[in-house]
Amino acid sequence: MTKKMFASDNNSGIHPLILEAISKANDGHAPAYGDDSFTSNVAIKFREHFGEDSDVLFVFNGTGANVIALKAMVRSHQAIICTEGAHIHADEGGAAEGFIGGKLLTVPTEDGKLTVSQIEQQLVHIGSQHRSQPKAISISQCTELGTVYTIDEIKQLTSFAHANGLLVHMDGARISNAAAFLGCSLKEMTTDAGIDMLSFGGTKNGMMIGEAVVCLRKELAPELKYIRKQSMQLGSKMRFISVQFESLFSDNLWLENAIHANNMALQLAEGLQKIPGIALTQPVQSNAVFASIPVEHIHQLQKSYGFAIWNIEKNEIRLVTSFDTTQEDVNLFLSTTQKAFE
Amino acid sequence: MTKKMFASDNNSGIHPLILEAISKANDGHAPAYGDDSFTSNVAIKFREHFGEDSDVLFVFNGTGANVIALKAMVRSHQAIICTEGAHIHADEGGAAEGFIGGKLLTVPTEDGKLTVSQIEQQLVHIGSQHRSQPKAISISQCTELGTVYTIDEIKQLTSFAHANGLLVHMDGARISNAAAFLGCSLKEMTTDAGIDMLSFGGTKNGMMIGEAVVCLRKELAPELKYIRKQSMQLGSKMRFISVQFESLFSDNLWLENAIHANNMALQLAEGLQKIPGIALTQPVQSNAVFASIPVEHIHQLQKSYGFAIWNIEKNEIRLVTSFDTTQEDVNLFLSTTQKAFE
Amino acid sequence: MTKKMFASDNNSGIHPLILEAISKANDGHAPAYGDDSFTSNVAIKFREHFGEDSDVLFVFNGTGANVIALKAMVRSHQAIICTEGAHIHADEGGAAEGFIGGKLLTVPTEDGKLTVSQIEQQLVHIGSQHRSQPKAISISQCTELGTVYTIDEIKQLTSFAHANGLLVHMDGARISNAAAFLGCSLKEMTTDAGIDMLSFGGTKNGMMIGEAVVCLRKELAPELKYIRKQSMQLGSKMRFISVQFESLFSDNLWLENAIHANNMALQLAEGLQKIPGIALTQPVQSNAVFASIPVEHIHQLQKSYGFAIWNIEKNEIRLVTSFDTTQEDVNLFLSTTQKAFE
Amino acid sequence: MTKKMFASDNNSGIHPLILEAISKANDGHAPAYGDDSFTSNVAIKFREHFGEDSDVLFVFNGTGANVIALKAMVRSHQAIICTEGAHIHADEGGAAEGFIGGKLLTVPTEDGKLTVSQIEQQLVHIGSQHRSQPKAISISQCTELGTVYTIDEIKQLTSFAHANGLLVHMDGARISNAAAFLGCSLKEMTTDAGIDMLSFGGTKNGMMIGEAVVCLRKELAPELKYIRKQSMQLGSKMRFISVQFESLFSDNLWLENAIHANNMALQLAEGLQKIPGIALTQPVQSNAVFASIPVEHIHQLQKSYGFAIWNIEKNEIRLVTSFDTTQEDVNLFLSTTQKAFE
Repeated sequence: MTKKMFASDNNSGIHPLILEAISKANDGHAPAYGDDSFTSNVAIKFREHFGEDSDVLFVFNGTGANVIALKAMVRSHQAIICTEGAHIHADEGGAAEGFIGGKLLTVPTEDGKLTVSQIEQQLVHIGSQHRSQPKAISISQCTELGTVYTIDEIKQLTSFAHANGLLVHMDGARISNAAAFLGCSLKEMTTDAGIDMLSFGGTKNGMMIGEAVVCLRKELAPELKYIRKQSMQLGSKMRFISVQFESLFSDNLWLENAIHANNMALQLAEGLQKIPGIALTQPVQSNAVFASIPVEHIHQLQKSYGFAIWNIEKNEIRLVTSFDTTQEDVNLFLSTTQKAFE
Repeated sequence: MTKKMFASDNNSGIHPLILEAISKANDGHAPAYGDDSFTSNVAIKFREHFGEDSDVLFVFNGTGANVIALKAMVRSHQAIICTEGAHIHADEGGAAEGFIGGKLLTVPTEDGKLTVSQIEQQLVHIGSQHRSQPKAISISQCTELGTVYTIDEIKQLTSFAHANGLLVHMDGARISNAAAFLGCSLKEMTTDAGIDMLSFGGTKNGMMIGEAVVCLRKELAPELKYIRKQSMQLGSKMRFISVQFESLFSDNLWLENAIHANNMALQLAEGLQKIPGIALTQPVQSNAVFASIPVEHIHQLQKSYGFAIWNIEKNEIRLVTSFDTTQEDVNLFLSTTQKAFE
Repeated sequence: MTKKMFASDNNSGIHPLILEAISKANDGHAPAYGDDSFTSNVAIKFREHFGEDSDVLFVFNGTGANVIALKAMVRSHQAIICTEGAHIHADEGGAAEGFIGGKLLTVPTEDGKLTVSQIEQQLVHIGSQHRSQPKAISISQCTELGTVYTIDEIKQLTSFAHANGLLVHMDGARISNAAAFLGCSLKEMTTDAGIDMLSFGGTKNGMMIGEAVVCLRKELAPELKYIRKQSMQLGSKMRFISVQFESLFSDNLWLENAIHANNMALQLAEGLQKIPGIALTQPVQSNAVFASIPVEHIHQLQKSYGFAIWNIEKNEIRLVTSFDTTQEDVNLFLSTTQKAFE
Repeated sequence: MTKKMFASDNNSGIHPLILEAISKANDGHAPAYGDDSFTSNVAIKFREHFGEDSDVLFVFNGTGANVIALKAMVRSHQAIICTEGAHIHADEGGAAEGFIGGKLLTVPTEDGKLTVSQIEQQLVHIGSQHRSQPKAISISQCTELGTVYTIDEIKQLTSFAHANGLLVHMDGARISNAAAFLGCSLKEMTTDAGIDMLSFGGTKNGMMIGEAVVCLRKELAPELKYIRKQSMQLGSKMRFISVQFESLFSDNLWLENAIHANNMALQLAEGLQKIPGIALTQPVQSNAVFASIPVEHIHQLQKSYGFAIWNIEKNEIRLVTSFDTTQEDVNLFLSTTQKAFE
C-alpha cells in the first residue's frame, strides 16, 4: 500500500463511488462531446446548486477551467486583477497570457485574499490607451493559502467590481472545502454573492479527471462552448466526466468529502500546534495547513513524507489533506513529527 | 442497453481491461503531474515501440496533442501545411491558430493524403518576408477519409520535407488502425519513416481519456513539458491516464482493438457493396467506411442509427466502427439497410 | 534621377503638397499620441467623408489597419471569410492569425471578388462547436487584382452578411482608386453600402507613412484605441501622420491622385493591348494592369523595369501606376516593350 | 508659436536636418519594404556603431521595437524579467503579452534599475513545468526614471544572465541620452557590455517616425524580418525611415541632440533645486527631471505647462527636455515656477 502524502489533494485517488459511477456508465455507445444524456442530466444538478440561470461546461483540468472562464470575460487588451499567489498567475505556466493574450495585474497579500482597496489602486489608469484596461478580477475560494473569504467579503468585492465595470471570476478548485468551512450552500457563496463565472473543482475532491466552468452571467454563456473547444478542453467521451460529477452531487458526496478533508486538516493543525517550535502561519479554514517548522526537522520529515516547502526563508511548509486522508494518517504524521522533535 | 452507433469511435466506451487498470491504480496516493511510477513505467513501453530516443507526454485529447506537437515545431510567423480536411484545420475550433498564432496552409485532396508536389507548391514564397514561412507539414495516419499512407509514401514526404527544412507531424488519432492495416510496427511507420512528432491516439481505441505526444526528434523534447502546461493539457492525477496506456500496450491490446475495428469496417463495406445503389467512395483501409447512398435511404437509416453525413451533395455518409463493434452490430445494420432498399 | 518603376505604388515617393504639410506642422511642440489639434481637425474631415457616426484612428501601415479593424470585429474562436488572394491572407505574414488568434477561411476567385454564394458555403457549420465560427467577411476595394466591386455588389454582400450575423470589413488600401473608377463618393461605397469597418489607405496614394481605421459601426468604436495600442500601431508624434491626411483631403488631392494613377494604368493597358502577343488578364479598373506576356519578353523587360511577375505559369505580370507616374513613363515603357517584340 | 512643453520628448518636432533628409530622399521611385539603397547604406552606419556582427531592422515605434526584440528571444511559455515601471510592462497596452503570449515577471525598484539579486529571486522555479520559465531580462537605458546604468552595472547583469541561460534586451528608446551621460560609445554600452538585442530610439531624439531593432546576437537575426512583418511593423516606403537614421548618424547629430537635451535637464534641475520646497526625487542623468513639488504649485504650473504627474501621492512630477528645448524655455519655466512660490 502506498503511504498517504500531504503534498497535495492531487495525489489522492478516485473516490470509490465515483469510480463505480464511471464503471456503470461504461455501457454501450453514447453520443460524444457532451451530447449524451449523462451530461444533460448532471447539468440539471448544477442548476439546482447554482440557480436556474446558470450554465455548466465540463473541462479536463483547473487551468482549463480558469482560462476558459477568464477568456469569456476579457479581451486581450484588458487585464485581470488577482493576487501574486493566485494559481492563474503562479502555477499555470502562463496559460492565461498564452491563450487570452492579456495581462494579469497582481497584488501582494498576506492571507491570499484580494481587497477592495487593492483593486481600487489598479483602476487609476482606466481610460488610458497606454494601459491594459482592468476588466475582471479573479479570486480563489478557498485561497492558495487555505483561507476562505466570508460571504460578506465576496459581496464587497463583487459590488465594488460591478460598480466599476469589472466582472468577477472565482477559482473554485477547492470551493467545496470553502463551503464546508462556511457552512453555506454553493449558491450563497457564488450566484447570490455576485460571482459572474466560476471554476468548479472536481479532481481534488475525489474525481479522477474533471472540472467545470459554471457561468452565472447569462450573456457570457453563448460563446463558452467555442472557447472551450479552441482551448483544447472539449472531451470526446464526455459521459465519463459527467458521471463523475453526477456521483459527486449524489448524497452530498461533494460536501462530505470536503468536510472530512477539512476535519483532517484541523486535527493536523491542532496536533502540530502542541509541538513546541512549530507555529501555524495561516488560519486553518479548509484542507491545508501552513506551518513553520525548524529547517532541520523539515528535512527529516521529508524522508518519510511528501509535502510542499512553501517558503524556505520562513521555514514554512504546506500540508494538504484530502477526502481519503484517514485519522491514522494524521496520527502517524503527528507522532512522526513529535518524535523528530524529541 | 444502448444501441451501437456508427457515428464515431468516440461514441464507444472504455475497454474492460483498461477500466480494470484504472481501478487497480486507484490505491492510495501517488505523486501528481506525472511524477508517479505508473507514468515512468509506461514511458518505457513507449520507447520500446518508438525507439530509445523517443520521449512521450500524456495529454487529455487529440486537439491538445496536435497543438502541443505543432507548437513545438513552429513559431507564429511560420506555417503548417496540411490538407483541407485535416482535423487540425477542420475540426479543432481554431485551436492551432489560437495557441500557436500561426497559419495553416491547406491543400485540397481527393483521398485525404498530402503529396510531395502539393507541398512543393506551398514553398514558392520561402524567404519572402511578406509570407508566413512553411516550417512543418502535418499528415493524418490514417487520414480523415479512412485511407492509409504506405510507409513509402510517408518516407517520400519526410525526405522531401527534411530536404527543404520542414518538420513532419503525424496526427495519429487512429494510428493503431493504420498499423493494423499495413501490418507493420508503430516504429516502422513513424520513427523509421522520418516522422518528427506524433500525436498518438488512445481514446478512440478503447481508452476513457488520454492521448500522447510522442517526440521523435530529440532537440524538440526539452520544451514540451512547458508547452503542455501552457496548453492546459497537464493532468494532475496523471497515473490514471498512464495506466490506460499501460493497459493498451499490454498483450497487444492496442493492435487487437484496431484489427477488430478494421475487420468490422471491412465486413460493413462488403455488405454495403452488395446492395445496388450503394457505392463506396473511399477504399476501406481502417475503421471507417465512406459510401454514397440515395438520400431517401439516408434519412430512413438515420431513424435507427447514428452516423455522419459526410457530404450531402454527394449523398455520402461515413460509418465508423470501433473496438466494441460486434458482428451482430454489423449484420443488423446491413439487414436494416438492405430492408430499406426493398 | 531614379527611373519610375511599375512594381508597386509603394515605390512612389511623397506628394509634394503632403511633404509641405509635414514641414508646416513641424513648428514647436504638440501633444503626443493623437491629443493634438492636427489630429482632431482631420477627424472632422473624415466625418465629412464617412458620416457623422464614423470614428477614425490613424495607424502606421495597411497590415496594422486591417488587423486592428478585424480584431475589433471577431474573437479568436471566430473566423474571417476572405479570398485566397486577399492581402490579409497572402501578404501580411500571418499578422491576423498572430494577433487575433483566429482563422481565415479562404475561397478561390478568378477576379478577386468574393460572392454571396461563396460566403454561404462557409456558413454550413455555424453552431458547431468543432468549427471556428464565421463572424466577419473581409473584401478589398479595389481588389488585389485591380478589379472594383460595384456599389450594388457591395450592398449584396453586406445585406447577406448582416442578415447572417456577419460584420463586413473593407480593405481600402487603394479605395481612392476605386472611388475614382466608380465616380462615387467614399461614403456611397462604404457607410451607405453597409460596410462596418474600413482600412483607408494613405501611403499608396501619395503619403509618406499612414493609414486609417475608419469605424462605421458605433458599437465597435470604444475599444479601438486600446486595440491600436496593443497592436503596436499608436504613433507618438501623431501630428505628422494627421497632417498628411489633412493634406490628402484638401482640394480633393486624394481623388486627383487616384484619377491620375487610374488614367496612367488605362493608357498602359491600351498600349499593351495593341502589341500582338500581349493580352490583358483582368479588366483595368484601377491603377493596376495585369497582362500575359511571352516569358522571354518578361525577362528582357525586367532588365529595364521593375514589376511583379504575378503568375509565372500564365506568364502574367502586374504593372502598377501611381500618383507620380507620368505620361512619359508610360510612353517609354510602351516603346521599350514594343521594341522587345520586334 | 506653440509653447514648449516638458511633458515628453515625444511632443517635440522633427529636427530640421532630418526633415531635410526626408525631403532629399523624395526623388522618384525606390524599391519598397527596405530593398532600397538608403536602407542598405544606413545599415552600414549601424554596423559602425554596433559592430560588424550586428543586424538592424527599422520599425515604426518603440513598442514595436521592444515586442519584436523580445519575441525573437522568448517563446510563449517563457518569461521576461523586468521592473514594475518598465515601459514594456506599464506603457505598452499589453502588447508583449498579446503578441508573444508569454509572461512578464516584474520586480519593484526605487531607481528604475534591475539588480542581479532581483533576477536571481525570479529563477527559483527554473525547471518547474508549472511556471513560465524566465528566458530573458529587459532593462531600459536610460530607465523610465531617467537614471542610467553604468557599463559595469550592465555587464554584471549580462554576465549573470548569460551564466543562467538568459538573454538580455535593452530598451534604448533614449539610449542616446544615456550615451551622452556616460560619455561612452553606443557599442561600449551594448555590444561590448553583453547586450543581445537592442531597441534603438530615433523618434524621441529628433526623428519624425522610426525606431530600430539592433540584433547583437547573430543566431537571433534570421527570423527577425518575419517577426517584424507579423508584428505589423514593416513599412512600405522604408527609405523615408532609413534616411532619418542616416541623418541622425551624420555629424554626430544623435549625440549632439542628446547632449543638448541632457544639459537642458541639468539646468532645469539645478534651478529647481534652488527653490525651497522643491526636491529632486531621482538623480538627473539624462533628459528627465523628477521632482517633488507641493501639490498646490503643481496645479498652478499645470495651467501654463504640460508635464506628467508621476506619483500623486508623493507630489512627484516628471519634466522631460528634448533636442529642441532652449535655454529660454528652461529659464521661463524656472521663473514661472519661482513666481509660483513667492
